[in-house]
Amino acid sequence: MKRIFEVDPWHVVSHELVPADKRLQESMTSIGNGYMGMRGMFEEHYSGDTLKGIYIGGVWYPDKTRVGWWKNGYPDYFGKVINSVNFIKVNVTIDGDQVDLAKDNVSDFTLDLDMYTGILRRSFIVTKGEKRVQFMIDRFVSVAQKELFDVHYSVHNLSNEPVQVSFMSQIDADVFNEDANYDEQFWQVLDKSHAITGGSMFAETKPNDFGTPRFTLGMQMLHETSLRGINAPDAEKAVTNIFRGELAPDETKNFEKRVLVVTSRDYADMPAMRTGLAELSETVSSQSYEDLRQAHVDGWAQRWQLADVVIDGDDAAQQGIRFNLFQLFSTYYGEDKRLNLGPKGFTGEKYGGATYWDTEAFGVPFYLSLAKPEVTENLLEYRYNQLAGAFHNAKMQGLAGALYPMVTFNGIECHNEWEITFEEIHRNGSIAYAIFNYTRYTGDETYLKTKGIDVLTGISRFWADRVHFSQRNQQYMIHGVTGPNEYENNVNNNWYTNFMARWTLEYTLASLKKVSADKRAELKITDDELAKWQDIIDRMYFPHDDKLGIFVQQDGFLDKDVQPVSAIPADQRPINQHWSWDHILRSPYIKQADVLQGIYYFMDRFTPEEKKRNFDFYEPLTVHESSLSPAVHAILAADLHYEDKAVEMYERTARLDLDNYNNDTVDGLHITSMTGSWLAIVQGFAGMRVTDDTLAFAPFVPKAWTRYQFHVNFRGRLLKVDVDQQGTTVELVSGNPLTIELNGKTVEVANTVSTK
Amino acid sequence: MKRIFEVDPWHVVSHELVPADKRLQESMTSIGNGYMGMRGMFEEHYSGDTLKGIYIGGVWYPDKTRVGWWKNGYPDYFGKVINSVNFIKVNVTIDGDQVDLAKDNVSDFTLDLDMYTGILRRSFIVTKGEKRVQFMIDRFVSVAQKELFDVHYSVHNLSNEPVQVSFMSQIDADVFNEDANYDEQFWQVLDKSHAITGGSMFAETKPNDFGTPRFTLGMQMLHETSLRGINAPDAEKAVTNIFRGELAPDETKNFEKRVLVVTSRDYADMPAMRTGLAELSETVSSQSYEDLRQAHVDGWAQRWQLADVVIDGDDAAQQGIRFNLFQLFSTYYGEDKRLNLGPKGFTGEKYGGATYWDTEAFGVPFYLSLAKPEVTENLLEYRYNQLAGAFHNAKMQGLAGALYPMVTFNGIECHNEWEITFEEIHRNGSIAYAIFNYTRYTGDETYLKTKGIDVLTGISRFWADRVHFSQRNQQYMIHGVTGPNEYENNVNNNWYTNFMARWTLEYTLASLKKVSADKRAELKITDDELAKWQDIIDRMYFPHDDKLGIFVQQDGFLDKDVQPVSAIPADQRPINQHWSWDHILRSPYIKQADVLQGIYYFMDRFTPEEKKRNFDFYEPLTVHESSLSPAVHAILAADLHYEDKAVEMYERTARLDLDNYNNDTVDGLHITSMTGSWLAIVQGFAGMRVTDDTLAFAPFVPKAWTRYQFHVNFRGRLLKVDVDQQGTTVELVSGNPLTIELNGKTVEVANTVSTK
Repeated sequence: MKRIFEVDPWHVVSHELVPADKRLQESMTSIGNGYMGMRGMFEEHYSGDTLKGIYIGGVWYPDKTRVGWWKNGYPDYFGKVINSVNFIKVNVTIDGDQVDLAKDNVSDFTLDLDMYTGILRRSFIVTKGEKRVQFMIDRFVSVAQKELFDVHYSVHNLSNEPVQVSFMSQIDADVFNEDANYDEQFWQVLDKSHAITGGSMFAETKPNDFGTPRFTLGMQMLHETSLRGINAPDAEKAVTNIFRGELAPDETKNFEKRVLVVTSRDYADMPAMRTGLAELSETVSSQSYEDLRQAHVDGWAQRWQLADVVIDGDDAAQQGIRFNLFQLFSTYYGEDKRLNLGPKGFTGEKYGGATYWDTEAFGVPFYLSLAKPEVTENLLEYRYNQLAGAFHNAKMQGLAGALYPMVTFNGIECHNEWEITFEEIHRNGSIAYAIFNYTRYTGDETYLKTKGIDVLTGISRFWADRVHFSQRNQQYMIHGVTGPNEYENNVNNNWYTNFMARWTLEYTLASLKKVSADKRAELKITDDELAKWQDIIDRMYFPHDDKLGIFVQQDGFLDKDVQPVSAIPADQRPINQHWSWDHILRSPYIKQADVLQGIYYFMDRFTPEEKKRNFDFYEPLTVHESSLSPAVHAILAADLHYEDKAVEMYERTARLDLDNYNNDTVDGLHITSMTGSWLAIVQGFAGMRVTDDTLAFAPFVPKAWTRYQFHVNFRGRLLKVDVDQQGTTVELVSGNPLTIELNGKTVEVANTVSTK
Repeated sequence: MKRIFEVDPWHVVSHELVPADKRLQESMTSIGNGYMGMRGMFEEHYSGDTLKGIYIGGVWYPDKTRVGWWKNGYPDYFGKVINSVNFIKVNVTIDGDQVDLAKDNVSDFTLDLDMYTGILRRSFIVTKGEKRVQFMIDRFVSVAQKELFDVHYSVHNLSNEPVQVSFMSQIDADVFNEDANYDEQFWQVLDKSHAITGGSMFAETKPNDFGTPRFTLGMQMLHETSLRGINAPDAEKAVTNIFRGELAPDETKNFEKRVLVVTSRDYADMPAMRTGLAELSETVSSQSYEDLRQAHVDGWAQRWQLADVVIDGDDAAQQGIRFNLFQLFSTYYGEDKRLNLGPKGFTGEKYGGATYWDTEAFGVPFYLSLAKPEVTENLLEYRYNQLAGAFHNAKMQGLAGALYPMVTFNGIECHNEWEITFEEIHRNGSIAYAIFNYTRYTGDETYLKTKGIDVLTGISRFWADRVHFSQRNQQYMIHGVTGPNEYENNVNNNWYTNFMARWTLEYTLASLKKVSADKRAELKITDDELAKWQDIIDRMYFPHDDKLGIFVQQDGFLDKDVQPVSAIPADQRPINQHWSWDHILRSPYIKQADVLQGIYYFMDRFTPEEKKRNFDFYEPLTVHESSLSPAVHAILAADLHYEDKAVEMYERTARLDLDNYNNDTVDGLHITSMTGSWLAIVQGFAGMRVTDDTLAFAPFVPKAWTRYQFHVNFRGRLLKVDVDQQGTTVELVSGNPLTIELNGKTVEVANTVSTK
């Protein structure tokens, strides 16, 4: 654990510039608007250690798959998140001497991410000899105009003499990925132009061997300043503008850089892209800095109005949940159905790919409650639109139907460990579950009947081909899988996987009864196929232990040397950094919820005793070495009234990055797991459920808190829930009156209901 | 299957030069002398497709391990077999025009590997315009003087006019490995010198990051010819001699290149190496070509005298067994205990590493019968000398004791698939078994008591730490392994692995009773440890099926969809080229003997019924996609009197490379599996066993054969066994009379015994 920012309800703020923590600081001060985003690295030259990262949603490069020993069916390429052309660059000089915060005499330093406004501010004083200059720098990527990046400098001369300042602003294609294999670069400059006060560049990703699309970026930079533009030399890969001027003692001057970034993803061809960029530039040129900034701030205010969670009595928890909401919304706010929730969002290049099953398991329930239904529908349509890729993935394994990928940009699997790529197939279950979850939450079956059914049918066909019939047992089995607990590989009859397979078949059969005859015909459903699915449902095998009364994680699990996590010496934790893989695999330790994930998904299908026995058995064996693990345990613990355990689990998820719990936040933030802290509060502490079209709450307040408040969207209503030690108040902020269940009682919310 | 050479009892001969088959031809005409060797590529420039490969035993380079996703415990490097400096190079011109068999008008071509003499001969006529020149080229690496490579040209002018010929002879360090990652080169020239008639070079492997030894080669080339040496320019990385002369019509001239190759492996320092090389050059210079050649031919004649197998009635089988013996002896004849049986010997660069468990499982029984005991003892000492590496490997997995590597040059594991590196630990069992096998065959316990016991104790300590006690079952288990059948990974309680673990503990306990008290003290054996081992022996779990009466390959095996190999569509064979890995893993198909490997090792511990039931169950599930598989099945089938099955299995091993069965002989020969054909004849058809100090035979003759003869060494005797349809004759060629068992009867062999 390492906390380098102050605890503050709305700010991520620090007054120190510690070179050793620079990357960590950069990760934590990342900003984004769903379309693009960047780490908190400085615009100016910085000669110290830094991880530069600017990312554009949906822009990637297929990198040749490299493995020790090739196996049939491996993907050809891995989808790499590539660093964009650096369009934020601004090098500053004072009396001709370059500002470099790694070397300069810096004082009064502040780095402040204002989560309420989505603006990252830096301020500091640089002293060079007799000269002292104060900087105030505000950066944002606009949530009102997605193509707009804006950085605004205020420089104030604190010296008794005049100071010469210059700003060299660039769009620079000479960028690298740290994870490049051969220090190769991914951008080729197509053309560029510049005038005295601005410039533009078009750059394209280099060709690839795999026939995946190349991407073009178009970037126009505009500058607003009273400083004088001068002729600037162009480098081969950069467009440059230089502005110079003098600051009298005590004088302040401003320098604003606006960059408009368009991509070939949004335009039919280059001429259209050029026109689009020109129009955007014109629109933006006609507005003042204050206008642009206010539109952005208003956008964030609106988001918070719908989604803020207030926690009284625990500022660290308050900061944690807001930070997570801020970063989630910065990554994805549902505007572009071709995009998804990347594991690192716009905060780092690690992992690659844009989409994991995290989206369906942890993202969908979050966006269902905090955004309009269209946002979640976009997440579902993303999968619908990638069905062709899922068919391809199944075919690569010689199987029928659709297998959604573990990691992808375009639907084609790009992960390349056999035990994951080929075997962690439970991911398919979460894709189906998301359709169920959306339909249950919204009460709207339109998506299910028109598109969802195609996805469900594809997935069911996969399961029906992937099971085998064991003659000896006269039951269907699924061998050779990796469950959600990736600390077991190639196991037989993972309870969760078998459960999700059977459930998918059931749900698909039920859903097919609701769709039109035309749709069934289009899907070429036959009676034989339905009968086969029913047979699998009827004769699916599930490992179970009668003595312990638990669902068994996989066939061999109980043969292990079953000892609780507390038996592991402290200096061997986390085990994934201390044990060799075989040691982990044969241990009983669970990386993240596995059987419990299934129980969480279908909470109302299990008795309290079943939930308790399984939780009591598996939780003590769980090391939570996935950031996705604690939230599910928090929710189940709350359900079982294990309130202390629920709070303990919540605390592991809420400030994971802010406190650098896993010692890897330098690489970027754990975006997809950030939903977990919100789910722990709302589904855990507040006990929110949707059963039979009814929304229910059964809240408690963690001992250390005095109160918490949150909002949820539900079927056209916006509800505000306020919980303190006296009870719960549910307020109907907008929409028609609604009947809900509160602490087990049915109540109608017309304005406000309260148990206080 | 592809047969490009003629069937001939002693020759591998072809009269065609087919460019598309060049690599295959090169693999099959590889020669070696245990110290060095090379593929059958030409000395002269050849502009067509070719895989150049010259290899020096024990000379390698540690290549950084590359995997998709790193896991704790992976080896840092992979030991790469590197292509030596090319010292065989001879470029020839005719009237100034370079000879290039890929382009020239070539006639009367013959390529002939004489297995009896170990000489590779090429002859052909090159026609360039009016000029016709006949070449006769003999190449050998001497088995009498290991450092000597010799190539001898006879050129004969068939034209009516004089012909100018030149020979440009080089030592050239500008060589590549095809499997280099970045086209990097591994040799750095230290120094070189040349005179008119010869030259020398010293070259060193480039530095590495892993602290493994660098190797230096010293090479001296000498030439014997009546052609005139002229001044030759040196390239940066090559030493060159040029010889020119004129051939009158019908005139023949000779050109002989001798190269002496020494390595830093055999010398304390560079001055010693220079002196050694000079002395060798002097020795060799004093001898004629005929002398050098004869000494080499005599060496091979002696080997054949001790080891030849004669088969009457089946020339293809005859050629197959001789080819395998020839290539095995070319790879390893026991002279250097630092070397071992590399999987490709000196015939290709693929796989890397020098040592696999193939050595102990398939090499040791072969060399026990065909060479002096010292040769096998050297193979055992190789492992003894690498105990430190085995301790390191176990430690990398957090385990006690010794884990021998899957692939290595120096004892440190260098394979990097987790399911092999960490899990295919049964290899340890074969290391122990080899000690038992050697001791049983030789009747000499000296090695066991002095060195073998150290290895056995180390391995037993590994097993004792690697098992776990399953509380539920109250038995010891071994989870997370890959058995000999690599088509299952990460399984629990692989019968073979558990069996070998228990047997090793038993054998170590028994052996410890025989060693001195000092030895036991040195090994720090405690009573507690012995008690623990005994407890594991007593309570080891073995999967067994009472209904089928078989040992079960691993816990989940019988839950599979068990269908015979005959159910696989023909166009999906071999499955490893058609199925994705998950498909293979959950199938019931077996790559190579697994349960049956254990039964083969301990043939006399199982009843005929047990052997039959297990063979009948497992053989139909076996795809034999490892070259090591058919031999074990041939031997077991013979034991069960399934003679047709035994012959079928023999045929799959005998001409594997000659007929390019697996379509991969272009990469090099399957050296380690070549012992299989010999074992199939001797332990299979002839039923050779050693039980309770007694050698036994129970032969039959395959229907297509009229007779076969072979030799075996046994406890100081050389026996010749002759089998035909009338019966068996055993002749004592040398040594004292011996009591053996023949067809179940005890007989004494003083001169000859016969059942005919």
